[in-house]
Amino acid sequence: MIIVMSSKATPENLEELTGVLKERGYDAHLSKGVETTIVGAVGALPSAEEKAAFMEQLETLPYVDRVVPVAKPYKLVNKQFHPEPTVIDVRGVRIGDPAKVIVMAGPCTVETPEQLHASAQAVKAAGAHILRGGAFKPSTSPYSFHGHGEAALKMLAESREEFGIPIITEVMDVRDVELVCKYADILQIGTRNMANFTLLKEVGDAKVPVMLKRGMAALYEEYLQAAEYIASRGNYEIMLCERGVRTFETYTRNTFDINAIPAWKELSHLPVIADPSHATGKASLVAPVTKAAVAAGADGVIIEVHPYPSRALKDGAQSLEPEAFARLVRELEPVAQSVGRTIR
Amino acid sequence: MIIVMSSKATPENLEELTGVLKERGYDAHLSKGVETTIVGAVGALPSAEEKAAFMEQLETLPYVDRVVPVAKPYKLVNKQFHPEPTVIDVRGVRIGDPAKVIVMAGPCTVETPEQLHASAQAVKAAGAHILRGGAFKPSTSPYSFHGHGEAALKMLAESREEFGIPIITEVMDVRDVELVCKYADILQIGTRNMANFTLLKEVGDAKVPVMLKRGMAALYEEYLQAAEYIASRGNYEIMLCERGVRTFETYTRNTFDINAIPAWKELSHLPVIADPSHATGKASLVAPVTKAAVAAGADGVIIEVHPYPSRALKDGAQSLEPEAFARLVRELEPVAQSVGRTIR
Amino acid sequence: MIIVMSSKATPENLEELTGVLKERGYDAHLSKGVETTIVGAVGALPSAEEKAAFMEQLETLPYVDRVVPVAKPYKLVNKQFHPEPTVIDVRGVRIGDPAKVIVMAGPCTVETPEQLHASAQAVKAAGAHILRGGAFKPSTSPYSFHGHGEAALKMLAESREEFGIPIITEVMDVRDVELVCKYADILQIGTRNMANFTLLKEVGDAKVPVMLKRGMAALYEEYLQAAEYIASRGNYEIMLCERGVRTFETYTRNTFDINAIPAWKELSHLPVIADPSHATGKASLVAPVTKAAVAAGADGVIIEVHPYPSRALKDGAQSLEPEAFARLVRELEPVAQSVGRTIR
Amino acid sequence: MIIVMSSKATPENLEELTGVLKERGYDAHLSKGVETTIVGAVGALPSAEEKAAFMEQLETLPYVDRVVPVAKPYKLVNKQFHPEPTVIDVRGVRIGDPAKVIVMAGPCTVETPEQLHASAQAVKAAGAHILRGGAFKPSTSPYSFHGHGEAALKMLAESREEFGIPIITEVMDVRDVELVCKYADILQIGTRNMANFTLLKEVGDAKVPVMLKRGMAALYEEYLQAAEYIASRGNYEIMLCERGVRTFETYTRNTFDINAIPAWKELSHLPVIADPSHATGKASLVAPVTKAAVAAGADGVIIEVHPYPSRALKDGAQSLEPEAFARLVRELEPVAQSVGRTIR
Repeated sequence: MIIVMSSKATPENLEELTGVLKERGYDAHLSKGVETTIVGAVGALPSAEEKAAFMEQLETLPYVDRVVPVAKPYKLVNKQFHPEPTVIDVRGVRIGDPAKVIVMAGPCTVETPEQLHASAQAVKAAGAHILRGGAFKPSTSPYSFHGHGEAALKMLAESREEFGIPIITEVMDVRDVELVCKYADILQIGTRNMANFTLLKEVGDAKVPVMLKRGMAALYEEYLQAAEYIASRGNYEIMLCERGVRTFETYTRNTFDINAIPAWKELSHLPVIADPSHATGKASLVAPVTKAAVAAGADGVIIEVHPYPSRALKDGAQSLEPEAFARLVRELEPVAQSVGRTIR
Repeated sequence: MIIVMSSKATPENLEELTGVLKERGYDAHLSKGVETTIVGAVGALPSAEEKAAFMEQLETLPYVDRVVPVAKPYKLVNKQFHPEPTVIDVRGVRIGDPAKVIVMAGPCTVETPEQLHASAQAVKAAGAHILRGGAFKPSTSPYSFHGHGEAALKMLAESREEFGIPIITEVMDVRDVELVCKYADILQIGTRNMANFTLLKEVGDAKVPVMLKRGMAALYEEYLQAAEYIASRGNYEIMLCERGVRTFETYTRNTFDINAIPAWKELSHLPVIADPSHATGKASLVAPVTKAAVAAGADGVIIEVHPYPSRALKDGAQSLEPEAFARLVRELEPVAQSVGRTIR
Repeated sequence: MIIVMSSKATPENLEELTGVLKERGYDAHLSKGVETTIVGAVGALPSAEEKAAFMEQLETLPYVDRVVPVAKPYKLVNKQFHPEPTVIDVRGVRIGDPAKVIVMAGPCTVETPEQLHASAQAVKAAGAHILRGGAFKPSTSPYSFHGHGEAALKMLAESREEFGIPIITEVMDVRDVELVCKYADILQIGTRNMANFTLLKEVGDAKVPVMLKRGMAALYEEYLQAAEYIASRGNYEIMLCERGVRTFETYTRNTFDINAIPAWKELSHLPVIADPSHATGKASLVAPVTKAAVAAGADGVIIEVHPYPSRALKDGAQSLEPEAFARLVRELEPVAQSVGRTIR
Repeated sequence: MIIVMSSKATPENLEELTGVLKERGYDAHLSKGVETTIVGAVGALPSAEEKAAFMEQLETLPYVDRVVPVAKPYKLVNKQFHPEPTVIDVRGVRIGDPAKVIVMAGPCTVETPEQLHASAQAVKAAGAHILRGGAFKPSTSPYSFHGHGEAALKMLAESREEFGIPIITEVMDVRDVELVCKYADILQIGTRNMANFTLLKEVGDAKVPVMLKRGMAALYEEYLQAAEYIASRGNYEIMLCERGVRTFETYTRNTFDINAIPAWKELSHLPVIADPSHATGKASLVAPVTKAAVAAGADGVIIEVHPYPSRALKDGAQSLEPEAFARLVRELEPVAQSVGRTIR
């Protein structure tokens, strides 16, 4: 770490600091400048926990201006220590494969057997690899529809059997992890739960592939640490997912951070999925933003499709009709090819 | 609700829409303009859930440009239907009383019996009404310190006995709510869990006073709906808490949204607490921002105090030393008086 | 416009409001609901100015809760009134042509004749259509390099002659508009000047094509009104440009709002250019984000290229070397083709 | 500055870097760690301009991970080099005096002689020290009212004579600086022009006191550099002004950054003014936020007052009526006293 001294620091302060550092096993290297002195502190505290606390403690010293960390606060999901891309095999669908782009699609919420059946049939026919559908739904309002729970999970499993397509569904409650794992091929952690650390640990223990959505105001570094929570319990089958961040703009539901896609590929070895439905909130913008995500290097996309958006119980405004979805998949193939990949 | 028609809408579209509205029990009032037609739809769907879904469905109609809600999406915490301020009595401490300002203080995290004892003694002596201290701590890093759990809860309860001061502590996991309720006088829901709806329901069932922190990118309307989750389970003893929002500024840890204090008092009858420690992240800014919060009408403040900030395991940089805290309480009294209240 | 009455509004208030509206030439249509009454006000004030002021005045009435505008506040740049895309012809380069993607490239700042010559030669050889280069440079610090002014404009004009490539350059000062127009084929308005209304009027009078960059925290609606300023003076040759917005993320210099590209194509008929160099601030992210922008429907891109980034006087960290730029152009052609366009 | 080496840097790279640094007059101090090496570079380039460019150049080197600046990029407005607070005397009104809080008030825009006269009379009677009023008004829409220009300046000067109250008014166009200086006691630079560097230089040359509003998405460091632009031309009579920043919240017009007040007092010696009218956009929130600003240490406030807000041509919704303003000033005096100051 780097310690920038206050401009008022005295030689005695410097000596004291050097002593504190030595005591904790750090070597101090001084760079004295005209206005300030910089101390490079090199060493290795036994744990990241102690390191973080120690840095905060140093910052409270009156003669220290600030402490700048040097190492990244995540290891297991860091590309630096694991340069090869992680490929997750979900019933034969390879997510993260440099030659493939994966399409996940389906309704926001499982509403009825008919609605799910029609959705599954349509997305499978159009070329989707994985079926999405919500059984447990987070809702801003306590009075909104919260999903059919296990009944919906059973319907999803039936669609998997009928159409031969793996399923992804959200888990919100630590007490439901076991139940959802009985049915789901991929667990989804929603944006509101990105920093629900007890849930992260639980899915880390579950050893089922997880798609972790970025929190709506999460820094890359915080987000990758959330993934590290899951990895730190021994579950390395993690997909990152950009679903738009919250900004001042109100025309769209969120602002899709396209920079995140190549940035996360640079920082981590985990597959990156894009969610243009939530990132835009508008059906008319889903197709161009999906193409953009694939051109930027996304390993997959997840798209809301509903047989009758105008009767959807949730997120109708951002859902594609089956026909529009099929057209998007057709148009996406040349985009995937233009960056050396294929959807097929 | 108000439905703004697309500029391309035909008279047939309008007729169709009117039919749809009637079918669902709404009366339609048309305002035809030069460029657009507006439809005022008045009626009452049996539940807010159906209403929200219906509005989303209308927005997917090709001849509808947008749907503007008129009513606020929260009722129980809405001042309009409950004009009197809620006062919460916690072992004789009245939170929300128009004549009083409540001070909560203590360490970020309960570290050792000695540290907590010194903290409790200091904050009580300085005039604090409620002791804070973390037993379960959310941490961005999986490798950081996560609190001593029940052992810390016991220490807090001991300090309550010794110093006669009620205690507030955070609960993060739905499975811990029962345990924490055995010790705590006030449950704290942290900023990362504001939209952890399963936790909100659980503390709603618990019938123990709750301080709900605003999510770091939560709109007022979303935040008040989170409070509504708790109220909808029958627990009306809820305190709102502004702890800073995430913006582009990096000099401070967060940006304290002072507007929120009078705005929430306008929108809701719940008491409003300010957290200047997290909102600034810098001990040097805590005192002025605390005074600002009280001048703006906050019903209370919650402040991190540590006997030795430079040895704190967490949040040392934003913790006040006991002496600085005592000075702040002394200086706060005239500010409280200037707006017709008192800390004493 | 739509007027939402306060829940405390009396029938007398409603009558008064109706009178006020009639007086100003508006017809009022009432929709009385259980909780609130909505008034649809239809009419046409002679000017947008009076309309805006009138809406604000209505909002100050104690019995009015809020006023919701219905019409968009821009006309000349609004796609609704001008559905055909605008194509701007700059010395034979057609910007906005549905079959073409335009590449603008060059150094952030014109430094020396040699540097500009090497840059112009390289970007022309790689296939760029337009040469960029700063003569007047905005700088956060008063002590930074601010450009060579007219000397740089002359060098740009020489490169245009030598390589047969039109030039784009920024104008910052109203007093320089005439001078810059003598040399430039396209005037650039920088992000910090998006709401410099006196400058917008001046370039509106200049009748030279303008590329207007979005302000770093500008709403779509504000941005399109800034373009309307230029159009309102009779200059319709305007390009929109997304260059990233300011968010909480710090890994990248800005957050590229990819949603903006299809959204602006939906709202306006003006060509849309993407600036991945400023939007990312990192050379390693420029290529994937450029491809994303083209896949999302951008009509062109503007990219910083420097013969020796590590010796650049400005923005070296986000500049591509000539070789990397040439590779990007080669890789961009299949992406353009995948959405039915070409760079050639 | 501190240079963090890439984890892939070789000893040869380090040697090369040391050579580059020496060549430019820097001493390099190495701290070799397990994962990374840190280089502290100490020296003094002749100008800040060269320093900034040199740092950017270093960042482009493939073996450099990042460069961390140590010194603040502003000098003249930096408290470190000028610990005494700046006090600006405007016709006997002392702005920045630790014992006083200054109140500026008046209409957003000068509309008519009657409106200004009524406003001036009211604010003077209530105890305001300085009269505000817009002659040149920035407007998001080209079709809105843009102010009466010189006619309004004359009316302001007449009010100054009649009521013995100095005046503040905005200048937007470099070509108007001379004209506005003929009438104004304080020049206001609006939020949209904070980074209009040509205008900053012009008012820096003008040697008239300037109130510089913070840009709506400006970092403290950028803002203080904008002030440095003015100071670097020899004009040291600068007031900082927090007027709210743009965030995701839409209930209020902006989010008032109360942290900024004590933070700027910590970083700079310049007086700090608060603008609660623009920061909230709602008359009902102006009084509590004004009190908060004074409690946090603001040296003054600027408040919009209009004799008939419901007929105002601009910003009516955030303007106080004279009676409400007079009540606010009365209520503000005890708040000022609670922090050791007075309005009188």
